[in-house]
Parts: sequence; C-alpha cells; structure tokens
Amino acid sequence: MHPTQNLPSSELSKLLDSYRKFVETELYPIDLKVVQGPFRSYLPQLNELREKAKNLGLFAPHLDKESGGLGLSLSDFARVSEILGTSPLGHYVCNCQAPDIGNMELLELFGSDWQKETFLHPLQKGKIRSCFAMTEPANAGSNPVILSTTATREGDSYVINGHKWFTTAADGATFTIVMAVTNPEAESPYQRASMILVPLDNPGFSLIRNIPIMGEEGEDYLSHAEVKFENCRVSSDHLIGKEGQGFALAQERLGPGRIHHCMRWIGICERVFDMMCHRAVSRELLPGKPLAEKQSVQNWIAESRAEINASRLMVLNVASRMQELGSKAVKEEISTIKFYVADVLMKVIDRAIQVHGALGVTDDTLLSFWYRHERGARIYDGPDEVHKASLAKSILKKYRPQ
Amino acid sequence: MHPTQNLPSSELSKLLDSYRKFVETELYPIDLKVVQGPFRSYLPQLNELREKAKNLGLFAPHLDKESGGLGLSLSDFARVSEILGTSPLGHYVCNCQAPDIGNMELLELFGSDWQKETFLHPLQKGKIRSCFAMTEPANAGSNPVILSTTATREGDSYVINGHKWFTTAADGATFTIVMAVTNPEAESPYQRASMILVPLDNPGFSLIRNIPIMGEEGEDYLSHAEVKFENCRVSSDHLIGKEGQGFALAQERLGPGRIHHCMRWIGICERVFDMMCHRAVSRELLPGKPLAEKQSVQNWIAESRAEINASRLMVLNVASRMQELGSKAVKEEISTIKFYVADVLMKVIDRAIQVHGALGVTDDTLLSFWYRHERGARIYDGPDEVHKASLAKSILKKYRPQ
Amino acid sequence: MHPTQNLPSSELSKLLDSYRKFVETELYPIDLKVVQGPFRSYLPQLNELREKAKNLGLFAPHLDKESGGLGLSLSDFARVSEILGTSPLGHYVCNCQAPDIGNMELLELFGSDWQKETFLHPLQKGKIRSCFAMTEPANAGSNPVILSTTATREGDSYVINGHKWFTTAADGATFTIVMAVTNPEAESPYQRASMILVPLDNPGFSLIRNIPIMGEEGEDYLSHAEVKFENCRVSSDHLIGKEGQGFALAQERLGPGRIHHCMRWIGICERVFDMMCHRAVSRELLPGKPLAEKQSVQNWIAESRAEINASRLMVLNVASRMQELGSKAVKEEISTIKFYVADVLMKVIDRAIQVHGALGVTDDTLLSFWYRHERGARIYDGPDEVHKASLAKSILKKYRPQ
Amino acid sequence: MHPTQNLPSSELSKLLDSYRKFVETELYPIDLKVVQGPFRSYLPQLNELREKAKNLGLFAPHLDKESGGLGLSLSDFARVSEILGTSPLGHYVCNCQAPDIGNMELLELFGSDWQKETFLHPLQKGKIRSCFAMTEPANAGSNPVILSTTATREGDSYVINGHKWFTTAADGATFTIVMAVTNPEAESPYQRASMILVPLDNPGFSLIRNIPIMGEEGEDYLSHAEVKFENCRVSSDHLIGKEGQGFALAQERLGPGRIHHCMRWIGICERVFDMMCHRAVSRELLPGKPLAEKQSVQNWIAESRAEINASRLMVLNVASRMQELGSKAVKEEISTIKFYVADVLMKVIDRAIQVHGALGVTDDTLLSFWYRHERGARIYDGPDEVHKASLAKSILKKYRPQ
Repeated sequence: MHPTQNLPSSELSKLLDSYRKFVETELYPIDLKVVQGPFRSYLPQLNELREKAKNLGLFAPHLDKESGGLGLSLSDFARVSEILGTSPLGHYVCNCQAPDIGNMELLELFGSDWQKETFLHPLQKGKIRSCFAMTEPANAGSNPVILSTTATREGDSYVINGHKWFTTAADGATFTIVMAVTNPEAESPYQRASMILVPLDNPGFSLIRNIPIMGEEGEDYLSHAEVKFENCRVSSDHLIGKEGQGFALAQERLGPGRIHHCMRWIGICERVFDMMCHRAVSRELLPGKPLAEKQSVQNWIAESRAEINASRLMVLNVASRMQELGSKAVKEEISTIKFYVADVLMKVIDRAIQVHGALGVTDDTLLSFWYRHERGARIYDGPDEVHKASLAKSILKKYRPQ
Repeated sequence: MHPTQNLPSSELSKLLDSYRKFVETELYPIDLKVVQGPFRSYLPQLNELREKAKNLGLFAPHLDKESGGLGLSLSDFARVSEILGTSPLGHYVCNCQAPDIGNMELLELFGSDWQKETFLHPLQKGKIRSCFAMTEPANAGSNPVILSTTATREGDSYVINGHKWFTTAADGATFTIVMAVTNPEAESPYQRASMILVPLDNPGFSLIRNIPIMGEEGEDYLSHAEVKFENCRVSSDHLIGKEGQGFALAQERLGPGRIHHCMRWIGICERVFDMMCHRAVSRELLPGKPLAEKQSVQNWIAESRAEINASRLMVLNVASRMQELGSKAVKEEISTIKFYVADVLMKVIDRAIQVHGALGVTDDTLLSFWYRHERGARIYDGPDEVHKASLAKSILKKYRPQ
Repeated sequence: MHPTQNLPSSELSKLLDSYRKFVETELYPIDLKVVQGPFRSYLPQLNELREKAKNLGLFAPHLDKESGGLGLSLSDFARVSEILGTSPLGHYVCNCQAPDIGNMELLELFGSDWQKETFLHPLQKGKIRSCFAMTEPANAGSNPVILSTTATREGDSYVINGHKWFTTAADGATFTIVMAVTNPEAESPYQRASMILVPLDNPGFSLIRNIPIMGEEGEDYLSHAEVKFENCRVSSDHLIGKEGQGFALAQERLGPGRIHHCMRWIGICERVFDMMCHRAVSRELLPGKPLAEKQSVQNWIAESRAEINASRLMVLNVASRMQELGSKAVKEEISTIKFYVADVLMKVIDRAIQVHGALGVTDDTLLSFWYRHERGARIYDGPDEVHKASLAKSILKKYRPQ
Repeated sequence: MHPTQNLPSSELSKLLDSYRKFVETELYPIDLKVVQGPFRSYLPQLNELREKAKNLGLFAPHLDKESGGLGLSLSDFARVSEILGTSPLGHYVCNCQAPDIGNMELLELFGSDWQKETFLHPLQKGKIRSCFAMTEPANAGSNPVILSTTATREGDSYVINGHKWFTTAADGATFTIVMAVTNPEAESPYQRASMILVPLDNPGFSLIRNIPIMGEEGEDYLSHAEVKFENCRVSSDHLIGKEGQGFALAQERLGPGRIHHCMRWIGICERVFDMMCHRAVSRELLPGKPLAEKQSVQNWIAESRAEINASRLMVLNVASRMQELGSKAVKEEISTIKFYVADVLMKVIDRAIQVHGALGVTDDTLLSFWYRHERGARIYDGPDEVHKASLAKSILKKYRPQ
C-alpha cells in the first residue's frame, strides 16, 4: 500500500513542519479538554478540524493519492505519525487513527471490490468509523490462536457467535472486522480463523458496554467495547480474503500497525519530555532555585533523551527495512521495538509525573491521560514478555546445535 | 497518644484475625463497587458497617479506650492498619482514615479543651469528618516552608487568605486545619506558620472544585479539593498550640502519619499480591498451561514477596522504635520507609497489572484504582527525592570532616 | 548445634562491641594487603591473630562451649557474622569461615565418633582446613541432582571417580567432603548421592589447578580448586550418615549456610557503605564542593541504606525463625534472602565504585576485591533465578485450584 | 582527518567481511590467552599479526592513504571499529588502539612539522607507542579544569612538575602528551592548560607503577600507569598548538574518541551476546532442557539485542553527523552515547556472566576480563553522572524563561 519511494528530504522536512504547525496551533490548545470528554460533544469541532487538515493537504497521509491521501512511504508516514502522536487527537483528525488505519490497510490489500466500495471508501474519506474484534475475555490475548468465537457456514451465510472485548472504538462505528473460527478442523491452529466484516446494525451484534478503563468509560472513538455476537448472520461476501487466512491477514495488519503505535508513542514521549523540561525550569523550590538544578531531574531528562532517541532510530530503521524487504524480513525487529518503545514510553511518562509533583497526578495536564491509557501499551498487540520470548527464540534458533 | 505497651502476642493475633475476617467478609465483596462511586450513595451502607465494626470491637483502633477506641500501641495499630489497608474502605469504616486520624492525633496532643469538645470528640465518634489544608498550588510542596497563605491577627481574630489544593476529603467535611503564615518576620522559616481550625461553613472558605485526579473527581471522602480562604475570619481560640508552632506540630503529625501510610500500602501490596497469584494459577495460555508456569511471572512473584516482607519488617521496626524513643529519634528511618515502601507499592501494582493482561487496565478489578490513586504515594508527604536527600544528608553529617 | 537461647541483649551488645573493636584495630589495617596475597606468606600473621581472638574470647563463636566456642544461638551468631564480614579476614581469623563452618555443622550433626575425633575436632581448633566438593564443570550447578561423580562400593571401600570444581579452599586443606552418586538406581534423584570424607593426601585425589577467578588464581584458603577423583579409594567408615542421604544432609548444611553468607554480605555492604560515605565527604569536585552535595550520590547513599537495613531485618528474622522452627519451616524465606541480599550487595558495591571514580576500579581499595569475588554471590548456593522460581512455585502451590 | 566521503556500501560491506574474517581466524583463537599475559611475551606474535593486517590491507584504517591507512570516513571507521572491538586485540593489531589513535588525530591536526616527523610518523607505522597523561589522583577527573600539574616556562624550555595516573599504556611507550597548567592567571579556567609532548626517556619523568586494576597490574600496552614529572624539562617546541589551548585540543581529541570507545564497546557487546547465546543452547539443566528454554534467559537475550541495536544506531548516527557538522554540533549526542552505551555494555556483560553460571566468574572466558576492565567505561572520559548532567543542562538551556 505504501509506496517504497521516500519524499526528497527537503520536501519531507517542509511537510513535517506543516504538520508540526498544525498540531501546535490547532490541537494542543484543545486536546486536554477533548479527551476529558464527553467526546461526542466535540465531534462537530473535530470534523471542522478534519476539513482544515484536508485544506492544508494533511489529511490521510497514509493513503495513496488516488484515495485522497498523501501517498507517503511507510518511513515518511512514520515521521508524520510521530508528530501527530504528540496530541491524542492528531491521528484522529488526520483520519489515520487506529484501528481504522489497520482496517484500511487490510481492505486495500485483501478486500473485494464490493467491500472496498461499501466499507473502505467511506472509511478513507472519514465518513464512517470501524473497529476490530479479536481479543476475547475468556482467552489469553497473548496466545491469539486460542479463539472461542465461531463463524459457521450456513448456506451462503456465516453465523457468528462469540464474546469479544477491547473492541476499540466500537461505540459509534459502522462496521467491525471480527476474527472467528471457521475451520476448527484445520491442522494448523494458524489456519482455523477467518476475518469477517460485520455491519454493527446487524441485530446479532450487541455492544454490552464501553469497558471502564483506568477510571473512564469513554465514548465514541475514545472507548473500548465489550461486544457480543449472537447468531449474527452475514452473507458470505463479508469474508475478507479466504477462509482460514485470519492469522495470515492479522500478521499483515499488525506489522505496520506496530510501527504506527511505536511512532505515536515516540510522539507522546516528545510532548511529555517537553512538558517535563518546561516544568523543570519554571517550578521553583526556592526563589531562583528551579527543579532544573536538581541532579535527579537532570538524570531523568538525560536518560529520557537517550531512550527516546534510541527508540526513534530503531523504529525508523525498521520502517525503512520493512518498506524495502516486507513484513516477514523484519519480524525480529518488530518485536524489538514493540517492547523497547513501550517501556521507554512508560518510563518517560512516569518521570514527567514525578517532576510535576502533585500537579502530575491531576487531570490538569495530559500526563494523567497518558499514564492511564498507555499502560496498555505494554500489553496490547502482544505483551512485553511475548515479544521478548519470541525475539529470543528466533535468535536462538540460529545457535541451536545441529 | 498511643500507649507504649503492646498487646500480648496471642491477644494481638486474635484481634488481627477478627480484623481479617471483617475486611474479607464485609468489605471485599463491595469495595470495588464503592470506590467506583458515587461515594455518597454508599454512605448509609458504610455507616452500617461502622456500626458493625463498633459492635465487633474493631472501631477506632488508634484511640485510647476512654475515647472509644482499642488503646493499641503504635506497633499493634500498625499491624491492624496493614489489614485494613487491604481494602480501600478499611480505615474509613473503622474511623482511622487519613486525614482524620492525623487531625485526631494532633488535637489530642495540642488541642484546647474547647477544641477537643467541639471538634475532636465528634471526630472520634465518626460523626463528622475533617481535612487538612497545607499544600498550595503556587508553591512546591516538597519545600513546605514556602507558604503564601497568611493568617493575620486582627483584634481577637485571625483573617486567613490563601489558595490551597490537595485538601483531601474537604468535600463533606465539617472543619479543616489550615497551615498559614502568622509570623512572617520570624527568623527561622520554620517558625512562621501556625495551624488554625476553620469550620467549613465559614463564609470566607470556599471549595473551588474536587480536583479531577487520574480520571476521577471523586466526591465526599474520596476526593481532593482545591479551596480558597478569602478574608476568612475565625476567633483566635481556633489557633492550635501557639503561634509559629505550625511546623513543629506538622512534624508530630507526619511521623506516625507516614507509618500509617506505609502499613496501608503494605496492605494494598498484600491484596494485590494475592490477586496476582490467583490470576497466575487460573489464567491459562493453553489448556493446562497457566501463567504460573512462566518464569517472568515467577520472578515477579518472588521479587514482590521479598520486597513486601522487607517493607513490613522495616516499618514495624520503625513503629516499635518510635513508640519507645519518640518521633525525632527515628527521623532517618521514617524517610527510609517513606520512599522504599512507596516504590515497592508501585512495582507490585505494576507487575500485577501485567499478569492480569487486558483485564489489568480495566476498572473491573481494584488494580486500576490503586495504580491511579497510589501513584501519588511517591509524591505526597514528601516526594522520594526529598526523603532520599534528607536521609543521605543526615547520614553524611556524621562523616563530615571536622 | 546452635542453642536456641539468645544472649541477654546487653551481653550481646558488649560482645558485638568487642568484635567490632577487634576487626577495626586488628584486621582493617591489613586486610587489603593480605587479600592481595600471596596468602601463604601471611599465614604466620593470621595464626597470631587467631591466638589473639582466642585470648579475647572471640574464637569460633558458632561452636558450643565444650568445643571451644562461644555457644551462640544462630541469631546471635548472625549478628557477629555481620561484623566479621566487614573484613575479608574476619571469619577466617575467628575460624568460622566457609566452607569449614558448614563442614563443622555437618560433622557435628551427622559425623560418627571416629569422624568427629579425626576430622571435626582439629577443624574446630583451627589446626586444619577442609573443603567441600559438589559442583561439577560438566553439570549445571543449579540443578544439583545431576551429578556425574560416582562412589562405587567395593567390599569395604568406596571407589570415587569424578571431576569437580569450585572446591573452595582445597589448596592447603586436609580433607574434603565429596558429593557422589552411590545409589544410581534409587527412584528419587534426591536419594542417589552420598557425602563421603576424603583426606586430600589420598593418591586418587588430585588438585588440577586453582581456577583463576576474576583475575586471580589465589592460593591456600583464598582459592577455588578444580579437582579430580580417579579411582580414589576410601574405607566405608568415611561415609557421612547413610547412603543416599547426600541431599538431605546438603539441605541441612545449606540452610544456616545461606544465613551465614547473607550476614557476611551485609557486613561487606556496611564496610562498603562506610567507604562510600567517607569518599563522598572528602572528594571535592571544586574546593569546598564535595561529592556529598551531588544528588545522585545522595540517592545512592539513601537507597543503599534502605536496602541494607531491609536485608538485615530479613536475615535476622529468618535466623530467629529457623532457630525456633527448624530449617524446613523457613525454606521460602531462605530463598528470599539469598537472592535479595546478593542483589543488594552487588548494587551497593557498584555504587561505591562509581562514587570512588577511577580509584574505585584500582586495587588500592577493597572495592575491587569484592566487586570481583562477590559477583559469584548471585550464582553460588543457587543462582538468583533458581531461588526466585523455587520461592514462587512454593507460594503458588497454595493457590493452585483444587 | 577523516574524509567526509563514505565508501560505497558494497565496498564497505566487503571490507567489513575481511575484518570479520581476520578477527575470527587470527584473533579469537588467541585473545583470551594474550590478555592473561604476560603481554610482553606475546609481542613477537602480535607484531606478526600486524604484518598480516598490513598485507591484507587492514592496517591503520583510520589513517589517510598517504599515511599508510585506509582513508576511511569516521562513519566507515566506526563500523570497522565495532568488529575490531569484538576482540581485546583488534584495535591494537590494526594500530588504531587508544590512546595512540587519539594522539595520532591530535598530532595530525595540531602538531608541528617537527612533531609530526619525530612522533607522529613512527606512531602511524606502529613502530612506537604513546600515552596521554591527564588524570591526577589528587583531583576529580570529572572536573578536568582542576589540574595541579604545572609547566613553567624557563627560557626556551618548559619545566613540568606533577603527579598523574591512569596514564594508559605508559609502560613501554616512547612519549606521552601531558596536560599541564601553563597559564594559571588566565581568566577562564579552560584557558590555563596546555598539551606538551614528553619523551619518556626524559630523566624528569618516572613511572611509579602500573596500577593494579581489578586484580591485575598488567604490563606494556595492557596497563595503566601512575607517573611523576619532577623538574621534567623539555624545549618549547614540544608544546602542541598554543599555550592555553589544552582544553580546546582535548575536546577535539575526545569527540571522535568517544565514538571510538562506543563502537568498541558495541563490539564487545556483540561478542558477549554471542557467547551468551551459545551458552544458552548448549548448557543443559536436564538432558534436552537447555538454558535457552528459560524465560529469564530469553528476556536477557531479547533486552540485550534491543539495547545493542539501539546503541549501534545511535553511535553511527552521531558519527555521521559529526562527519558532516563537526564535533561541536554533536556535543549533546556525544554525551548521550557515552553514558547510554557504557550502561548497556555493563548490563550485557552481567547477563552473560549469569547465563554462564560458575564458568562466568572464572578467567576461562573473556567475560571476566571485560567485566573487570570495562567497569571503568562508566567512569573514564567522564562518568555517567557528568554526561547526564551536561546533556540535561544543555537541553534545559533552551527552555530557560527569558
């Protein structure tokens, strides 16, 4: 989907400046308020911002030009993504937010013409939203092959039954893609599940609740739903790709997805780092004695700088290699950045809170929002431990005595 | 206040069993719901529980018997406090919750007869609640001598002006104790402030807001207020102790206060540890393959066990030495436990969340509540860095070349 | 072996003062030189010091009075052990050094009269030294049941064959106790090995080399040997206890052994902490600006203080519980202190080196000696990971669903 | 000195392969033995290897072609340096070892013709060795402007008096460059010192001792000397650059020097990582159950992989920016990599030791050598704390309120 050609560096640099200016002037002044919600009440304002982004040529940077996007390479998009990530509204306003961006990538690559027409195109234009139903409360998300949700073929339909949660942004979405077992008898557990499109007005679908997470239910785009499929029937043209391809497609979806997350996290790190530095020079312990003079604060700033720089270099390096060599070739590196950057993110946020003192635990800054909502970063898309084990096993395979 | 005589160990052990049974049967089944609020709607139920605690002889363990308490030594109370801390409702239901317990200790030691009659006695009986207004948004809490709030003597009154926040539980309280500068000209910055009682129905007092903290405003007892004193006039008999004694009294108040906090944190650790172990044995990655078999999980459990044990031994050791030798003699140890236990607390909670996976970031368990509301533990009553520096300086003084 | 009665606290306190004075005046002035060796050249001087210790009533504190010791309880000995541990010579000079102390405990409990007469008594008097041959280069020490060394019964003899290393202090020792498989067919792998006494002048025994460890071969007591048993024949009265009891005895030997190690490590920590503080106040970055003013240094001092205190409280707590309840009852706590204190030890040493700067990596202080020779603390007597896993499994057993 | 033009990537890749082959076949088989010394006994063998390196076109990669080198850019040399760093002999054999490389860079840039002829050219050809005398035992190395060594102008000579240590490789060197105060009255402390060449056969120079470091005195190239200058007189043409330029030159010398160190450390990390992986797959806890299956080991491997990759990307990034923009422009990044990579180095070595168990603390592998001799990495060329503070202050300057 992404072209493999990067922008000339001066052009990219100009584009990044435009994004930086946009987030700083349009989003920073309002993002704290918006994330405190209620989110729906801000939709009109957010839609206006989307129009502005379109007019400025900043909308949908990940899409090719024919689809109304900027046609950026994965590497260039990664750079944009970092800047958008500095505001919790950045990706949303530019219509490249998870989980929609993953669904767009998936449908672009594997959707039928009908699926593209009906689901992908309105999504690309930001007219509708979507979600992705994979994780199940009854099964460990870290072992994705264990799924209880089934989609049984009955004539020309699939009948779906199952219980999912962490279906991000289901509230207000138009459709979901659901991962369900269609071929329980397949030999490999990786070939039993399929991805199926389900419009959310289907009577067999119900949204049980927006799960209260870290103190907030949220709503609309800013929510994570628990949902049920009860004899939920869709015609067979809602299948994406072929039966049994669920995991193969999920891998395709998750590869760039993890780069997107990592670059977004780096954006958060940079904003948080900036807040930490501002606080350090402005908060005084005694008149003329700012926190900045404390060596502990200096240590945190230095360590954070090092770790953020390391994160960016690693993620951009993977992005450029994935762009050149494909997802599979960089499997190890993807695991590496997933756990490394998530860890850096949480450490940087934690240090910034400590520098902010009492203010840091209030909702008067974005620190609390990120401290709470990004704790999941070390869990979703594979917990730290799974990625570490998977990386190590892959490395050790080369050492195994013959 | 606390007697220096410990209970015979078999008696203590029986008492602890009663507390354990009480929290497990009466509080654990409801505490998650109650902290999700609205808190006021649970007041009737909580009052019933207070009656139960009274009937069971578990009410106000920190008070002497004449005041309706159990007359426990500081050490024995510390043991009780750990058990109460395993539920967010424990101390509240037994009327030994912060900040009221600190105010009770203070008024018992330094209140006038009138103050005791009017404020202390109803507080001891659980008829009213109180708060403590010290921290100011404009000044670094870690340097408490910098206070902007003033109390100016005018005739027989004090006129108080100032802006405070993190006045915990002000919402619904009957009075506050406010720390205000009465003697700005005193040579030592430690002798400029005084503590003054202010009934909250005073027209000069206003509660600006319950500060939204880590995603929640809270209400009533479970809240932290931002408050204003504007020409708030009280008669001079509201002064506690003498003018300029503010910090001396605060030190008295904080010494045992930090032991109370630490033992409560250890209680949280134990509950969280228990949840982590339960999760480890019950969550399966594959049929018959629980998380408990994973070495990372085992490492977290072992490290948590070691650190919690270390915490308990250190805090009980300080409690018993403070009981014997007084607050001043254990100043170093108080700093030690403050930063050590707060750090352990956050590490144990973090590991338990990771073991719970997606469930860990939801509000479906108490982990989220504690992860959010105890992040402050590394900040309030002196941030880690202040206690570490203070401990180190005190140690190094003995090494200073003459 | 140890009585269960502690000394009255004033008596203990006086005894500890005597030990403190002894190590400070007699050992501190020479210990750095002695450990730099050659160790043998210092034997006359060390023997004189042993005489001094005897005259001062400080010799063999772990032995009962009839055997020429002080008859201290395990708890009281632990307190002594900490003080002795502050010098690398402390235990040696008082004849309570590993591995001899473990061998004394073992022979006292399980030795035959002949074994006591021949081996134990000279050992107790400090006339000979001994060693313990368990670890094998070919097998993971962390799984002790895998042993390749065999002792085959032939008539009234055992014929021992095997290859061991980390046979501490074999160079110059009079006998070793060797762990060898006598009953390979026993069902439980824990009942296959036995402990057998081998005088080192046996022609079937050879010392291959003193293993160079962390830059030093060492010699005599300060060495770790690689040894071989080749058709090494001893009469069957050299068996300790019964055939197949090897592991049961090893457990007995290791329980108090780990307490001894931990208290010695705490002693090291205290000496190192003291060096760190002295350095902090005396080393100036600018005239009048000592390292002590740096917050990083203060952090290290505070954290070290907390961790050392925690270590001591935990170890003394286990010692007193083991004294009361026996080794088995405190298996979990023994694992806990083993990995916790070893970790603290290495952290404290590392911080002290950093505070000493370039001097810290030279052999001009004891820091280098301990940095190098105590890295093994996280490995010997069970690596961190084994103790953590064992502790966690033991805890989780109680949670296992029925 | 380094050209700014990189090799075409295929050419570089071929060159790196040659270096890799060279170190693997020529150095790995002997390096453990050589570092155990005595070093001088290996000089003939090492000189042969230098000849081999010359014949293979691998000698002096950092020098331009006219000087007999490969004319590599700083970036390309960094890549070579990593490979050489995998053996403790790599840089030495290719004549690009510290401190000589720094002295070559310095003399190339600032030496007079006479100095180049007399000192630089034989050094470039590997005919002589040199050293650098800066650190003083009496003054904190972390604050380099505090120097006690003086060089007083007397007629056409400088008379040098002072006491230095950590004069690496002085034993056997032909000359040193000494940092001494020539202009004590200069206003800025950064303009008081000068660099002066001193042939070591000068009667005013004496080598007091090779400092025993972490268990070893070492000798010849593998040593760190304590030295004295007593009325050491050299003619004024031994001054490098101008009087008072000492620190300015030192900065020039240290910039690339830190990149060299970092890449060497990364080389060590890779060799150590490789050892750790080999050990993990080959050491069995039970037949068929290698350490590689343990999640703790997997965690260490994964974390090490991430951190080494991060290190390399950061260092290569700085190298390429320094090549383009000069030393000053990358001052912050140089500090960043100095403390980040040194920390990674020590962590990776520590993990590898733990994986090796008892073997890890012996001198039977290179782990012990590096564990001991690289502990200094967190101290020399500026301790962690100095670089962190310097980085943080530089960042915070941009935030300072106007």
